[in-house]
Amino acid sequence: MLRSLFFGVAFAALFTGPAAADPLLDEARSLFKPLPATAPVIKDNPATPEKVDLGRMLFFEPRLSSSHLFSCNSCHNVATGGVDGLETSIGHGWAAGPRNAPTVLNAVNNVAQFWDGRAKDLKTQAKGPIQAAVEMNSTPDRVLQVLTSMPEYKGLFAKAFPGEKDPVSFDNVAKAIEVFEATLITPDSPFDRFLAGDAKAMTAQQKKGLALFMEKGCSACHNGINVGGQDYFPFGVMEKPGADVLPAGDKGRFQVTNTATDEYVFRSPTLRNVTLTAPYFHSGKVWDLREAVAVMGNVQLGTVLSEEEIDAITAFLGSLTGRQPRIEVPILPPSTPQTPRPVTQ
Amino acid sequence: MLRSLFFGVAFAALFTGPAAADPLLDEARSLFKPLPATAPVIKDNPATPEKVDLGRMLFFEPRLSSSHLFSCNSCHNVATGGVDGLETSIGHGWAAGPRNAPTVLNAVNNVAQFWDGRAKDLKTQAKGPIQAAVEMNSTPDRVLQVLTSMPEYKGLFAKAFPGEKDPVSFDNVAKAIEVFEATLITPDSPFDRFLAGDAKAMTAQQKKGLALFMEKGCSACHNGINVGGQDYFPFGVMEKPGADVLPAGDKGRFQVTNTATDEYVFRSPTLRNVTLTAPYFHSGKVWDLREAVAVMGNVQLGTVLSEEEIDAITAFLGSLTGRQPRIEVPILPPSTPQTPRPVTQ
Repeated sequence: MLRSLFFGVAFAALFTGPAAADPLLDEARSLFKPLPATAPVIKDNPATPEKVDLGRMLFFEPRLSSSHLFSCNSCHNVATGGVDGLETSIGHGWAAGPRNAPTVLNAVNNVAQFWDGRAKDLKTQAKGPIQAAVEMNSTPDRVLQVLTSMPEYKGLFAKAFPGEKDPVSFDNVAKAIEVFEATLITPDSPFDRFLAGDAKAMTAQQKKGLALFMEKGCSACHNGINVGGQDYFPFGVMEKPGADVLPAGDKGRFQVTNTATDEYVFRSPTLRNVTLTAPYFHSGKVWDLREAVAVMGNVQLGTVLSEEEIDAITAFLGSLTGRQPRIEVPILPPSTPQTPRPVTQ
Repeated sequence: MLRSLFFGVAFAALFTGPAAADPLLDEARSLFKPLPATAPVIKDNPATPEKVDLGRMLFFEPRLSSSHLFSCNSCHNVATGGVDGLETSIGHGWAAGPRNAPTVLNAVNNVAQFWDGRAKDLKTQAKGPIQAAVEMNSTPDRVLQVLTSMPEYKGLFAKAFPGEKDPVSFDNVAKAIEVFEATLITPDSPFDRFLAGDAKAMTAQQKKGLALFMEKGCSACHNGINVGGQDYFPFGVMEKPGADVLPAGDKGRFQVTNTATDEYVFRSPTLRNVTLTAPYFHSGKVWDLREAVAVMGNVQLGTVLSEEEIDAITAFLGSLTGRQPRIEVPILPPSTPQTPRPVTQ
């Protein structure tokens, strides 16, 4: 009796258990990982509440730019999917940036930062736009002058970096921003719930899209925890996109490695929250997600996707939108007579 | 026995009760009013949670600008005292605005809005920068195209303005922003607590400054609930300031009323949170609060204030910093293919 009950349960599990009954889920689980609900640990930069909170202040601190107009949040706006929704960002003096601003959401899980991966982590990345002439146009020296001019910041750095002799440093600015940005994750998307075993979390159309996404080969470049962001690939594997989408002057990772095979190679972007982050591609030239899917089919897979396939894949991409981070605007310390004045020229 | 106890209590009250014992408090109470802890009611625009929340979204909505770069919060940043800390704001195409951005904090209590009072209330004010070519550079038509392109906004306007046939209107954009801005008040400053009877809320130096502020005549133009903002006054009552501080081309309220006596007349600014809102004056030319106090003494009162007096008045002004509003960044709906593209040229 006991034995036949055991066999009965095992037999039922074979046909109704999630692993055995859903080959789509099995295949998805072999390629993707759900986002955890909490910020990942950064091994060389442990988070503390004080450091995260300082990072939040610095992320919203316009005085990190020389004009006092731009903060990290200007181009990586947590109100709008961690991006600015522009083809390329507007920076100091109304300059246009060279590439579309990638989302800060879940960026901590990317293999490296920037479209060409030239920053190995978020703390290295954070130092870039602060100094870029067409972005925040500041310098490490100016940043330190700004921060040390405000007694409140000095106290907050001392608490965030206890025991350090000079806690207000450009490295620590970047480290604080990194641990804050690591909290900007978007768990609990329909896709994550599906991966966790909730078969009803995705619609039939989204599941069809997921199947196509894997079957057609999209998942070759967009996989892992971020559904992308994990490696580098040439843009135009099968066919070069038009010069509008892939401007000839931007050779991507070649500019980092100086290796011929890295010409027009870019880090695949995360597709998490992709419905929130138009326009698309490093050039920001494609505004419609369906069109972006079609372009990818053509140039990366050498396939003309049908309208039906594009609809289904686009529906699947919609299942990647997770719970957006709820962030309180920090109250920043007032400037003092020692704070460098904004430079708007 | 009962009677003698009664007299004893009354007698004690005569000498220790706040009203009788503190002529400074009496005088202050005759000129100023404490901020209430809750948003004031706007009589032609009743607040509901839905309307306030929609207003918060619109206040942080960069797509109200044609570039999709500027929101209300860009120049009236709740992180930095409700201002941008610039001489004059940077707007569309890197244009410099004509006047220093006034703080949004407690602005609901001002007699009217803008330095020249040309908007009678916050909902009228809100429409200005959205359309100004050197600010957000949009139009009512474009704003409505942007908002109606996103189904989520249509639902939110319907809930915020129930029973209206066309809830998504430029008027309602302004009304929602107004009720949100009315929540941006900063109660519980040391001065407010002093007014409420807490004699220890202000330092001796701050009280000395308060006494001077009233005695020298500063309170003639800066009084009421906002310690300013309640009426219009010529800049340079006793002596014209230098052309750097009072540029000849900006005739202030004259441009609104076309009345000769309104030349170089401006609404006195609120001094609440003034330590957070440098630089000062409509021209934004004075960065140091002590210097601003000295200039006011010279040009408005015809008095050369001593260093000691300037220190005390500046200390008093520091007692006007209240509890800053804690605002969660709203999560904004994604653009759709119908959303007008940003115009950055």
